[in-house]
Amino acid sequence: MGISPWVVIDNIGTLVTNDPEAGAGRLGLIRDAAVVLGDGIIQWVGARAHIPQGSADATVDLGGRAALPGFVDSHAHLVFGGERAEEFAARMAGTAYAAGGIRTTVEATRRATDAELSANAARLVAESVRSGTTTIECKSGYGQSVVDELRSLEVAAEVTPETTLLAAHLTPPEFAGDTDAYVRMVCAEMVPACAPNARWIDVFCETGAFDEHQSRAVLEAGIAAGLTARVHGNQLGPGPGVRLAAELGAASVDHVNFVTGEDVEALASGETVATLLPCADFSTRNRYPDARALLDAGVTVALAADCNPGTSYTTSIPLCIALAVREMHMSPDEAVWAATAGGAAALRRSDIGHIRIGARADLIALDAPSHLHLAYRPGVPLVHEVWKDGNRQ
Amino acid sequence: MGISPWVVIDNIGTLVTNDPEAGAGRLGLIRDAAVVLGDGIIQWVGARAHIPQGSADATVDLGGRAALPGFVDSHAHLVFGGERAEEFAARMAGTAYAAGGIRTTVEATRRATDAELSANAARLVAESVRSGTTTIECKSGYGQSVVDELRSLEVAAEVTPETTLLAAHLTPPEFAGDTDAYVRMVCAEMVPACAPNARWIDVFCETGAFDEHQSRAVLEAGIAAGLTARVHGNQLGPGPGVRLAAELGAASVDHVNFVTGEDVEALASGETVATLLPCADFSTRNRYPDARALLDAGVTVALAADCNPGTSYTTSIPLCIALAVREMHMSPDEAVWAATAGGAAALRRSDIGHIRIGARADLIALDAPSHLHLAYRPGVPLVHEVWKDGNRQ
Ligand SMILES: [Zn+2]
Ligand SMILES: [Zn+2]
Repeated sequence: MGISPWVVIDNIGTLVTNDPEAGAGRLGLIRDAAVVLGDGIIQWVGARAHIPQGSADATVDLGGRAALPGFVDSHAHLVFGGERAEEFAARMAGTAYAAGGIRTTVEATRRATDAELSANAARLVAESVRSGTTTIECKSGYGQSVVDELRSLEVAAEVTPETTLLAAHLTPPEFAGDTDAYVRMVCAEMVPACAPNARWIDVFCETGAFDEHQSRAVLEAGIAAGLTARVHGNQLGPGPGVRLAAELGAASVDHVNFVTGEDVEALASGETVATLLPCADFSTRNRYPDARALLDAGVTVALAADCNPGTSYTTSIPLCIALAVREMHMSPDEAVWAATAGGAAALRRSDIGHIRIGARADLIALDAPSHLHLAYRPGVPLVHEVWKDGNRQ
Repeated sequence: MGISPWVVIDNIGTLVTNDPEAGAGRLGLIRDAAVVLGDGIIQWVGARAHIPQGSADATVDLGGRAALPGFVDSHAHLVFGGERAEEFAARMAGTAYAAGGIRTTVEATRRATDAELSANAARLVAESVRSGTTTIECKSGYGQSVVDELRSLEVAAEVTPETTLLAAHLTPPEFAGDTDAYVRMVCAEMVPACAPNARWIDVFCETGAFDEHQSRAVLEAGIAAGLTARVHGNQLGPGPGVRLAAELGAASVDHVNFVTGEDVEALASGETVATLLPCADFSTRNRYPDARALLDAGVTVALAADCNPGTSYTTSIPLCIALAVREMHMSPDEAVWAATAGGAAALRRSDIGHIRIGARADLIALDAPSHLHLAYRPGVPLVHEVWKDGNRQ
């Protein structure tokens, strides 16, 4: 019967569809719901009293558990060597730490074999699936040489189609003191060499990393090579990242901790999603973004985990949701939307992030009667079951 | 070979013993360690190069994973009916919520059957074990009548020997407006009836709950009946709870968010542990306690999850550790100690919270090379394996 067996997911206490026409509110909530998965897509969704007869090979009874679209984690750095636990502990204690921060990871990544990088990325993807993520983006960015970015993207492609060339993450040691020269190399060599292996082009636009002019050059080179832009911006202070992203039609600008009214307006009047990364703010004691200002202005907001070994070594979208509610005053509904439909918007994907007929059969069930428990029960591994492309994970 | 098979836990990357004489620092860290469990206790601990020959029936190779004593969660409210997710969502949004807060839980608890209460408590204990807790305390407190407190303690005793009569949690509806009359009933009837089924006596000493005089009466009645005191104090504002706990030789005073220099001094010069409950502060947007002031004054600090359906519906000690580091400026080492040896001190237990020969064989392994990852990787379910009394859970 196709690429995945047909199955009725029955006895769903509360189903989040993200389809306001199918159920209550923006989340399109249906109580006592069922979903039919088959051939990798959603075949039917509705009240369990109306399940089509004979529509499936098997039935899974969720016993009143909540179900929702799988999380879409649109910001992850999974291709790296080593880890930085000691640096984390020193930062939290406010004590000096001799090692080189992100440069440590570049060294370890360049040193790592392809097999080591693949195993590490696969481990983190498996971990993210266990906490309910069914689509994850994956950036390069710890190579910062043509050869190392290229092999980073090859590793990324093993775990997701959402591969991002983070060409300008930091100026690597061989270009120390001459960021402009690095940017010239990126535009002339790295982007053309890597573009065939990536969907997205990304840049770290921040004081101390890449300025507006440099960021624009890298993003425009990527766009010329057929990629679509996404931007790390306004994480550590005000800056041009948000406006540059909006101007270049980026799919998303990520972090967005420090924004002006003008920045918010640029996002509200454009198509660029604001992706908030509260776990990074948690792990660095950064100021949380003003999610309410963004939401109240009508900006599309996504939540992502920003998994990386330096500033946010977590794959937990449930923790992002709990932090969004606690620290950013998003409602649980807004946070769940942002972690599903919002993430899909940030990846410009219409086939995920919702439970409608024809969507990818990416669905998770919680050990809880409603999606509210993702914020109400912080730290508890609530994900009971995960289906991706209709297959139980 | 005894009540549990003998097993060598081998190839431990970093072992936390909490025995400064066995390893480095206050955590007594041993690299490349092994532990022998047998007959429910720790039979041997040391460098894996020196594992005694023929000492066990089986070997578990942890492949370099970290291991530490099981978490000791010394503050939990697991005997209750219903849940309050909608109230949580309303509180987070700052909107009014019609239902009655903790009174809702009292009603639901009184209405619940013994079997329902038992199933709920067992579910939460199983969940806590999965996140590494091997000893948990359990309070009554949602009955607030002799019969309902008594059956609450019976349910608590099914899941732990650390049972607490939380006789004065709130004034129940039948005593509305006459808290003194409720306290008289507690002292004259409830404490004598319930004391045989409890180890501890507890009270919620806070403005709006029970004042110093009322709290003292309840605690002294409990002490007279053979129980040892623990106190909920100084959670929502300054108050007499901390000093009362110290004066009465309580094992612990819990919450401790608002303390004066005098309070800190009373704790530092006595035997009462300060148990901090950061997940409650997370879920209520309360001010976090000043852990540094307590630690720097020499107070013994414990961390506990305060699992309850109103203000902290989590069993996750790993989240407590991450919050203690992020929000309370405890070092990862201090937080791990507080969640193991600190919890044991708060329960006046010398047989748990450390890995020494003769201690209970309560040990957890992490999917991580060191205990630092509990704070470095927030939200990630890192607990790989749990042994309690030498038995794999
Ligand atoms: Zn990033
Ligand atoms: Zn409590």
